[in-house]
Amino acid sequence: MSTGKLLYAQSGGVTAVINATAAAVIETARSHRIKVLAARNGIVGVLREDLIDVGKESAATLRALAHTPGGAFGSCRFKLKSLDTDHAHYLRLIEVCKAHGIRYFLYNGGNDSADTCHKVSLIAKEYGYPLQAIGVPKTVDNDLAVTDACPGFGSAAKYTAVSLLEASFDVAAMAESSTKVFVYEVMGRHAGWLAAAAGLAGHGPDEAPHVILFPEVAFDETRFLDTVKATVARVGYCVVVVSEGLRHDDGRFVAEAGGKDAFGHSQLGGVGPHLAAVVKDRLGFKVHWTVPDYLQRSARHLASKTDFEQAQAVGRAAVEYAVAGMHGVMPVIVRQSDAPYRWKIAPAPLAKVANHEKKMPKSYIRRDGYGITDACRRYLAPLIAGEAAPPYGKDGLPRYARIKGVPVAKKLPPYPL
Amino acid sequence: MSTGKLLYAQSGGVTAVINATAAAVIETARSHRIKVLAARNGIVGVLREDLIDVGKESAATLRALAHTPGGAFGSCRFKLKSLDTDHAHYLRLIEVCKAHGIRYFLYNGGNDSADTCHKVSLIAKEYGYPLQAIGVPKTVDNDLAVTDACPGFGSAAKYTAVSLLEASFDVAAMAESSTKVFVYEVMGRHAGWLAAAAGLAGHGPDEAPHVILFPEVAFDETRFLDTVKATVARVGYCVVVVSEGLRHDDGRFVAEAGGKDAFGHSQLGGVGPHLAAVVKDRLGFKVHWTVPDYLQRSARHLASKTDFEQAQAVGRAAVEYAVAGMHGVMPVIVRQSDAPYRWKIAPAPLAKVANHEKKMPKSYIRRDGYGITDACRRYLAPLIAGEAAPPYGKDGLPRYARIKGVPVAKKLPPYPL
Repeated sequence: MSTGKLLYAQSGGVTAVINATAAAVIETARSHRIKVLAARNGIVGVLREDLIDVGKESAATLRALAHTPGGAFGSCRFKLKSLDTDHAHYLRLIEVCKAHGIRYFLYNGGNDSADTCHKVSLIAKEYGYPLQAIGVPKTVDNDLAVTDACPGFGSAAKYTAVSLLEASFDVAAMAESSTKVFVYEVMGRHAGWLAAAAGLAGHGPDEAPHVILFPEVAFDETRFLDTVKATVARVGYCVVVVSEGLRHDDGRFVAEAGGKDAFGHSQLGGVGPHLAAVVKDRLGFKVHWTVPDYLQRSARHLASKTDFEQAQAVGRAAVEYAVAGMHGVMPVIVRQSDAPYRWKIAPAPLAKVANHEKKMPKSYIRRDGYGITDACRRYLAPLIAGEAAPPYGKDGLPRYARIKGVPVAKKLPPYPL
Repeated sequence: MSTGKLLYAQSGGVTAVINATAAAVIETARSHRIKVLAARNGIVGVLREDLIDVGKESAATLRALAHTPGGAFGSCRFKLKSLDTDHAHYLRLIEVCKAHGIRYFLYNGGNDSADTCHKVSLIAKEYGYPLQAIGVPKTVDNDLAVTDACPGFGSAAKYTAVSLLEASFDVAAMAESSTKVFVYEVMGRHAGWLAAAAGLAGHGPDEAPHVILFPEVAFDETRFLDTVKATVARVGYCVVVVSEGLRHDDGRFVAEAGGKDAFGHSQLGGVGPHLAAVVKDRLGFKVHWTVPDYLQRSARHLASKTDFEQAQAVGRAAVEYAVAGMHGVMPVIVRQSDAPYRWKIAPAPLAKVANHEKKMPKSYIRRDGYGITDACRRYLAPLIAGEAAPPYGKDGLPRYARIKGVPVAKKLPPYPL
């Protein structure tokens, strides 16, 4: 039995299953009699010494956490820079861990968080503080290196394929005398994983989606409009999927909201309505469009069972790795076979994961650039398989948990942030 | 046993459960040994004599139809005008029915369709053709008069409440260092029923949605921005629901897409992103927004059990009314008690339903205009109760039916349309 505590924190955009990871972390740590604290709002909470005593949550809340979307302890968009530039921040992290007897730091996030976690691991070593920093994967963007898939992606992918399928039945019914083109905007700044997932909704050239616009393929408006026109002529309607990260061939985003987030990325959104207007004005068709935005990453009601199980598995493994004395690693998903889908969890060095972006392989995009290949389908299909519905109340709503979030008493002077 | 055939047609915007009504109509007609034809694309298909032989569909397809979204036989936005103006069209309808031995015409739609069905009933009588025209209710807008609720609305309402709840968990997790305001645009051109349904997601002033903008309440931008600002200060974030039909106090829509549909209505969409931009520019908060559009009315995967059962019940009743010799009526839902929710089906004269629009009672909107009252909650709650999930395939997608749609041989000369 260990006397050190475990600190768990969530980072970056949240998902439908990141709390399933949290629940698995808490349960596994408890089975090892390790006390769990959670940072409020990710690394920001660590710096502020704003910690939550997870032991104060009821057993019912912790059970319900496993099927609650969002990030129960709060997440953050706050990127720690290099060890030199943000040296004071890194030292503060170590101070907070020391003050609370934290020996295990589990950071649940994407690329940037893996990088932060890696640096925390390095600086703890440098300062001789025995902190085991372990990354835990999560992102609906599916762009983490090394791992076969990222927890959170499978559920967003299932949401996308199911919603696209359902909307396409609607458009098909309306097309004769009304809406002929439907534009569906998906998340994915640099990689078209969610756009590709929409492709699972249909088979063959006449089933929706008829056109997928990937961020990996430069947008050619003329060719796009010709394809939409030909599809309407042939099928009666046309369903278009477009990634928020669609770019012109000079690299500019087709639609930019204008702002920048904390990581310096442009805040996107709106390429869907933009394309809808282009189609309406140039081809004269009645067009509808949707931007699901946060709905696609928080739709716990439509979680993929595969994704749910993997989210739990990485949480359990992260604790086991910590207990086994590992640090500077991340549990990743290793695919052993496509069909039947078999996978296992294995440790990967954070240095290999941090700041690498997993792009879609070219072999996953159809030659004409507007669809997915069979190889892509083989990769994606198991990730959306299975259902993991939450329990519903008599009120018709899923029974999601809200934590009490009892704060741990502070031991250090305030830290300006 | 009757020798007359039954013609079923779908009209207007489709829903997650209109095919459940269709399946119930078909099954009930068969139990009376009545042959069923369906018009392809609603009244347009009748005028074109473009009819589908439903008897040619497999038993498996007809079973799956009950849990398939969209309008399996095709719908239309095509309004027949007065009996004088469109006299030729009405006569053609009678001709087509005569040619195919149709004695029962079941038209499944909203306000406009009830009007069309009523006129068909009148003209058949005038010309001495024994056609029993029965309306069957359907619309996600929930704006049909007389009936307690409209099949299709309960499922769209459940989708809205669940999606709003899930997205609000996401925003809560991101708010400290990122998104502080989330804007959710719902359908509802003139009546705020779906906007109100979003209100079911939260209780009390601090749970989302914090602001609902109803089409019934003139938009006051200054008061709105003040409320958003105060909510962010108090709660940490603010979730806003806005109806596509939001208007200024002079009656202009806050956002108009510019087009008009076949009924002369403006084609709306975009008030969500518009308000998001206003909040960002005026208050400086990071904002996300969603426009679910067709997703909210086709989300069969999240259908309400109440809605599903009512959609089937009106289909069954419509056939029973026809068999009993009734015409010019619509089966409507009569509420007998709120809790436990008890309801029955009863016939209402089409003349009472046609062209009346059921507005939200003033007593359903909170005094400040930004939320729902307890009376509204009592009305809405039972409509989203219960789940009616479709079966899923191994591929992780719901098993939805696609009809063969075998055409009935034409017997009349073509009709220019």
